[in-house]
Amino acid sequence: MSEDLLFQRIAASFGKQGLMTTLGATLDRVTPGNVMIRMPFSPAISQQHGFAHAGSIATIVDSACGYAALTLMPEDKAVLTSEFKINLLAPALGTHFEAIGTVLRAGRRVHVVQGEAWAIQGENRKQVAVMLATMMVIDGETGLKS
Amino acid sequence: MSEDLLFQRIAASFGKQGLMTTLGATLDRVTPGNVMIRMPFSPAISQQHGFAHAGSIATIVDSACGYAALTLMPEDKAVLTSEFKINLLAPALGTHFEAIGTVLRAGRRVHVVQGEAWAIQGENRKQVAVMLATMMVIDGETGLKS
Amino acid sequence: MSEDLLFQRIAASFGKQGLMTTLGATLDRVTPGNVMIRMPFSPAISQQHGFAHAGSIATIVDSACGYAALTLMPEDKAVLTSEFKINLLAPALGTHFEAIGTVLRAGRRVHVVQGEAWAIQGENRKQVAVMLATMMVIDGETGLKS
Amino acid sequence: MSEDLLFQRIAASFGKQGLMTTLGATLDRVTPGNVMIRMPFSPAISQQHGFAHAGSIATIVDSACGYAALTLMPEDKAVLTSEFKINLLAPALGTHFEAIGTVLRAGRRVHVVQGEAWAIQGENRKQVAVMLATMMVIDGETGLKS
Repeated sequence: MSEDLLFQRIAASFGKQGLMTTLGATLDRVTPGNVMIRMPFSPAISQQHGFAHAGSIATIVDSACGYAALTLMPEDKAVLTSEFKINLLAPALGTHFEAIGTVLRAGRRVHVVQGEAWAIQGENRKQVAVMLATMMVIDGETGLKS
Repeated sequence: MSEDLLFQRIAASFGKQGLMTTLGATLDRVTPGNVMIRMPFSPAISQQHGFAHAGSIATIVDSACGYAALTLMPEDKAVLTSEFKINLLAPALGTHFEAIGTVLRAGRRVHVVQGEAWAIQGENRKQVAVMLATMMVIDGETGLKS
Repeated sequence: MSEDLLFQRIAASFGKQGLMTTLGATLDRVTPGNVMIRMPFSPAISQQHGFAHAGSIATIVDSACGYAALTLMPEDKAVLTSEFKINLLAPALGTHFEAIGTVLRAGRRVHVVQGEAWAIQGENRKQVAVMLATMMVIDGETGLKS
Repeated sequence: MSEDLLFQRIAASFGKQGLMTTLGATLDRVTPGNVMIRMPFSPAISQQHGFAHAGSIATIVDSACGYAALTLMPEDKAVLTSEFKINLLAPALGTHFEAIGTVLRAGRRVHVVQGEAWAIQGENRKQVAVMLATMMVIDGETGLKS
C-alpha cells in the first residue's frame, strides 16, 4: 500500500474517533508501524494545576499506538486496545503535544507498541510520557472495521 | 475531617480539571481512600467503532485514583499521577460509566491505588476496565496545591 | 472437571516449571479461576537488603496468574504470559510468601488476571504486591501443551 | 566517579542479591544510567514448555533497571523497585539472555527506567521482552544501603 493510501486508511478511522475532535487532536504522520498525533494545549484538557491532564496525554498516545498497530494489519482486521501502561516523566506543560506510536512486535493476535509523548514550547521539545501498549488484532467476522 | 468537608476539598480540585468538564464527568462520591466519578456516554468521547474511547475511560479512572489518594494526604500536599496501567475487559458500551478509585497502600511518598470502570446500560452493570496506579505525594514547597 | 482432576492438570504443568523447584515454590490450591502458590523465604531468593527479590515475588504471582487462567481453558489449550504489571506495596519480609491469581475476565484469546502476594511472619499476614496480567490462550496447533 | 568505581559500587550490591547467584546471572556492564546483566539458560529457570520462565526474564530486567537507576543516585541513597510492567515479545529461547536497563528520567524521588531482554542463540540475537519500571530513591536514614 502506498503511504498516501495508508494515511487515508488511518485518517478514515481517526475521523470517526469523536474524542480526537473533542480534544482538538489531529493525525500528523503515518508510516508503516509508526503514527504521530498532535494536540494543542487548552484549558479544556487541563488537570487541577493547569498542566495537560494525564488522561488527555494517555488518550493521544493510546490512539497513536493503536493506529501504528493498524498500519501493519490486513485491511479486513480492526484494532482494539487490550491494555496499556504509561509513565509520566514530567508535568505536561507546552503549547502543544506530540504523541508517537511505534510497533515493537506485530503478532498474529496482538501487537506490542511503544508510545511516547512530547511537550513543545517554542524551541523546546521535552518528553513527558512513555507507554507500552498491547493492541488486539480483531477479526472482520466481529463486524468491527479498522 | 468530616465527609462533607472531604467532599468539598476534592470537589474544589475536581472543579479545576478542565478535562472533566469537557468529558461531562462529575464527582459522585468521596470517602477516605475511595472516590467515584461518573461520565455519560456521548459521541464526543467515542472511538472509531462507537464505543467509549479507552482514553476517556482511562481518564476518569485516573482522576478517581488520584482523588482517592488525595483524600488520605495532609491538606498541604498535592497529588500527581506517576504512572498507571489499565486493562480493558470489554468494549465500553453503555449510557454512562462509573470510575472508582480505591487506595491499596498510602505511603509517605507514593500511594498505590486500584481503579475500575463500569458500563451501565439500563439494569445492566458490567466492569469494562481495571487499573493499577501510582500517585505521587507532592510537597507544598513546589507551589502545587491539591 | 472435578477439583481433584483440575488440581492434577495444573500440578502436571507446574511440575515442569524448573524455576518453581529452584525457588522452592509449591502449588497450594487450585479452584476454577483461582490458584495459590507458596514459597518459603531463603537467602537464595534475596535482593541486596535481605528482602525477597521483587523478581522472585513477581515470578510466583505470574505463575499463579497463568495457572488461574489455565483452569478456565479447554484441555487442548496452553497458556503463555503476554504481559504483567506489578506494584510492590511493602518490602517482602516474611518466613514465606503466598501468591494468588484470580481471573477477572476469561476471553476467547486472552484472559485478564489479578494477582496478589502476601508475606507471612508468625501470625502476621501482609500484602506485599499486586499484579495485573494478560495471559494468552495458545492453540494446540502450536504444539504447546498446558 | 570513574567507571571502574561505578562498576565496583554496583557489583558490591549485586553480589548481595542471592537470587542473582541462584539464577546464574552475572553483572556484565555498568555505565552511568545503563546496566547489562547476563543469564545462561538452564532447566533451573524454565517454565512448562521449556522456555525461560517469564519470571526469570523479569527478574534480571528488574535488577538491570534498578542498578541503572542506582548508578545515578548519590552514594548515601538506596534503590527499591516501586513497580514494573513487562511485555513478553517472543518465547525466551536461547543459550543465554541479556537484560539491559536504561534510565529515561532521574528524578529526586523516583527514576523511570526502560528495560529490555534479548535471547542469544549462536549468531542470533532476538528481543524477547520490554519493561518500564519505577525505582524509588531511598534515603540513607532508613538504614538501607545501595
